[in-house]
Amino acid sequence: MSECQAPDNFILRLMRGEALPHPIGETLGARILELDLAAGRLEMEFVGTDAFRNPAGGVQGGMLAAMLDDITASLATATATRDERCATLDLHTSFLRPATVGPIRASARVVRRGREIVNVTGELSQDGRTVATATATCMLVAARPKSSA
Amino acid sequence: MSECQAPDNFILRLMRGEALPHPIGETLGARILELDLAAGRLEMEFVGTDAFRNPAGGVQGGMLAAMLDDITASLATATATRDERCATLDLHTSFLRPATVGPIRASARVVRRGREIVNVTGELSQDGRTVATATATCMLVAARPKSSA
Repeated sequence: MSECQAPDNFILRLMRGEALPHPIGETLGARILELDLAAGRLEMEFVGTDAFRNPAGGVQGGMLAAMLDDITASLATATATRDERCATLDLHTSFLRPATVGPIRASARVVRRGREIVNVTGELSQDGRTVATATATCMLVAARPKSSA
Repeated sequence: MSECQAPDNFILRLMRGEALPHPIGETLGARILELDLAAGRLEMEFVGTDAFRNPAGGVQGGMLAAMLDDITASLATATATRDERCATLDLHTSFLRPATVGPIRASARVVRRGREIVNVTGELSQDGRTVATATATCMLVAARPKSSA
């Protein structure tokens, strides 16, 4: 990742306790377990809650997609400089098995880190079995100051 | 939709007030506006909340995927008989514009209703502009009684 010589971004600040967690991270119970920038890998844990249940009683697939969006965007962001954020262009999720309420383990890997585009894959598992996978196309864009409106 | 001669399913019961909303539907602020089974179309509204915000301050893309999963699965389910439910195999979401906290309009359309597989497309818009689109591959499977565990 030679394009990424001095990363200092939201995820690194979050891990150092210098940034507050984002609301969706808290909603999904997101917790970073391990970031290996050299290998382009991120390990996280999420928590499926009762509020995420579908009519069949499991964790809705879309909420698994939200977890996969969070981990893939977090990994792309972790490779960014301070002035960049990740805008996900595309998320393709496959649902392999039903997921139940409780902890969900997540891992993500950078497939290609271009100058602007980061291709990332992600996987969720529960009790050692893969429940969903995703490929994400992320674009690193200049961070804009938040509107106060 | 000749395969679907006497639909009576969770979505139709929900619309008649004979079924309680599913938890994820309530979390996403889901509301059915119009179902046209003959045309294979469903119109809904969702609500993006502060809890869905990403680090950039908008509604996280994954939560848009959750809304698109809900509307596409709801439409597939609406074509099902009483003893079938929808298991989504695959959800491919494209993010076109940032979405902000507030109401989000949704529409979905059946592209093909096979015996088991229903191909559905979905779209979300805000202030008349498309923010995300998705294609979903849904499988109608025999409903299993919920575990009491």
